[in-house]
Amino acid sequence: MTLGAQRPPVPDPLERADLRARLHKALSGFLAEQAAALDAITEELQPMAEALGAFLLDGGKRLRPAFCYWGWRGAGGADTDAIVSAAGALELLHACALIHDDVMDVSDTRRGQPAVHRRFAILHRRQGWSGNPDAFGSSAAILLGDLCLIWADAMVNRAGLPAEALVRAAPVYDEMRVELMAGQFLDLLEQVRGGGSIDRALRVARYKTAKYTVERPLHFGATLAAAPVGILAAWTAYGLPLGEAFQLRDDVLGVYGDPATTGKPAGDDLREGKRTALLAAALEAASPAQAALLREHVGDPRLDEDGVAAIREVISDTGALMRIESMIADRTAQALSALEAADIPGEAGDALAELAASATDRRG
Amino acid sequence: MTLGAQRPPVPDPLERADLRARLHKALSGFLAEQAAALDAITEELQPMAEALGAFLLDGGKRLRPAFCYWGWRGAGGADTDAIVSAAGALELLHACALIHDDVMDVSDTRRGQPAVHRRFAILHRRQGWSGNPDAFGSSAAILLGDLCLIWADAMVNRAGLPAEALVRAAPVYDEMRVELMAGQFLDLLEQVRGGGSIDRALRVARYKTAKYTVERPLHFGATLAAAPVGILAAWTAYGLPLGEAFQLRDDVLGVYGDPATTGKPAGDDLREGKRTALLAAALEAASPAQAALLREHVGDPRLDEDGVAAIREVISDTGALMRIESMIADRTAQALSALEAADIPGEAGDALAELAASATDRRG
Repeated sequence: MTLGAQRPPVPDPLERADLRARLHKALSGFLAEQAAALDAITEELQPMAEALGAFLLDGGKRLRPAFCYWGWRGAGGADTDAIVSAAGALELLHACALIHDDVMDVSDTRRGQPAVHRRFAILHRRQGWSGNPDAFGSSAAILLGDLCLIWADAMVNRAGLPAEALVRAAPVYDEMRVELMAGQFLDLLEQVRGGGSIDRALRVARYKTAKYTVERPLHFGATLAAAPVGILAAWTAYGLPLGEAFQLRDDVLGVYGDPATTGKPAGDDLREGKRTALLAAALEAASPAQAALLREHVGDPRLDEDGVAAIREVISDTGALMRIESMIADRTAQALSALEAADIPGEAGDALAELAASATDRRG
Repeated sequence: MTLGAQRPPVPDPLERADLRARLHKALSGFLAEQAAALDAITEELQPMAEALGAFLLDGGKRLRPAFCYWGWRGAGGADTDAIVSAAGALELLHACALIHDDVMDVSDTRRGQPAVHRRFAILHRRQGWSGNPDAFGSSAAILLGDLCLIWADAMVNRAGLPAEALVRAAPVYDEMRVELMAGQFLDLLEQVRGGGSIDRALRVARYKTAKYTVERPLHFGATLAAAPVGILAAWTAYGLPLGEAFQLRDDVLGVYGDPATTGKPAGDDLREGKRTALLAAALEAASPAQAALLREHVGDPRLDEDGVAAIREVISDTGALMRIESMIADRTAQALSALEAADIPGEAGDALAELAASATDRRG
């Protein structure tokens, strides 16, 4: 069973304000400038810009830039190209997180394409260079991830926003990034400790996803726009439950998702042994035989399709899937009612309601 | 033979303006704040702050902060704690570079202590966590390196400098970091391509070291102080040759250095197969037998003490060591004469002359 196959696709909320096209233009323009700057050092640096271009411009949900942009608009900011550019920088920050994540997890693919470290390993082999291609691939990807973190700052700094806005929002930006890394570290701890609870998985989700993906991008946009304090509280009330729901949806897709829409092999999270809330819920409700099956197969790098199907069945049979789906629905409803209560004027309220739907009711 | 053993130690230029102690205070204060912020999320994040504290506060030449500080003072900036704090941030940036470098090189030690990824692997083993300790160590070190890059920005932002100074200097700061990563990538390419020339090694040194370690920190300090353009040109004329000399000294120490002062095992660069200017010079002048010995042993991870001694002898016999020593002397003289020509008023001129001596005539 591939979950959600019977539902109609959610409309793309990135169409509003032509945001997807404007973000693409801002990112490709910035990347072209940076590629030219590297080229001015030496053309041998081209593989860095090329690997990032393929990764950054070919896909991505652009959720973090969207929350930043509507966080600004909802706080009364005008619709300028400067805020689109500053928002786009969050996609570079996210590229750092994903590129480094794929190195850490030794993941082969991302968005249906070879992961960045795999691209570099392929380049190494094709060029017939000496040494270990995989080691070269990981090293180059670590450096490219670092460069993305740096380029993200440069893109914010050059977006064309007033100096006082940048200085005002810098602490929010720094906090967002620290929370991201803290969440990633907690996630790593969960993997090696094993056997976590739903509560522990939700705590990781709070930092790694809810704050970093939703709340802080909203705060960053609002702070750039010099929002009144009330807006920040509203963005938190909307952002945290929505962000948790987003992560829970991700967890479900990691087990039940269709590779054609997720861009990842089926059951990849299971093979990696991710300690998700979904898995914790299944283990909590499992019979001894079901628990034994989960413990045996989850985290097995050689897990095949039959194994994935068997785990899916157990997770569904324990009621864990239903429980997580109901947690997603509750949190999404909570986010939407916080949004309604905040009574955001203009287009931003509608856009954020659409984003809530697409972030939690998606297939990839 | 351990080079430089017969020379008296150079006086510590970090004593001037009490800079070492003030940097230590700024860094330990900042790190304590960040550790508390992580602790407020959960005490499980303590290993991150602890690993960094051990690494950041126990050693380091503090060269980049020193160049930044004197770049500011020489441009007419007043002696404030704010500039010491902003300068100290460069040590966090450097911590990112070193932590990631040690992951990429799979180096066991740094500054005579276990490298950060090794510390995390040891923690994993001690706690009896599941999975591979080395994989955990590398992942945790990648995340801690990212955090250092982020914390560096936060430390600059919170140093207490005026907003307009921060915005004015941001492009220099961004360029410095991009050049660092570009230099690291070129270095990586040199390793896998093998057989580089002196010119190619010097080009890597220019980005990885000359600009990143000397010229850009000086520019960053000067730009924070709103220096006239003439100062930036003077810092370049002093900084680039000095930075190259610094890297060449590093290359010599990587082969001939005493582990007691370098904090690295003897001949570590040889075992890693680093493509340095020193090695290129040796290969250029080597007889076929000497070249064969170099090609056989350089890059052999199991290289023992006898092998290191044999390579040292070949490098000395080819005249490469003398040639590099003379390049170091020439570049240091060039830097000092540029400094004299710039006629920097006050203490900064003396401090920069001392820094030039200690960066190029050192043992570790």
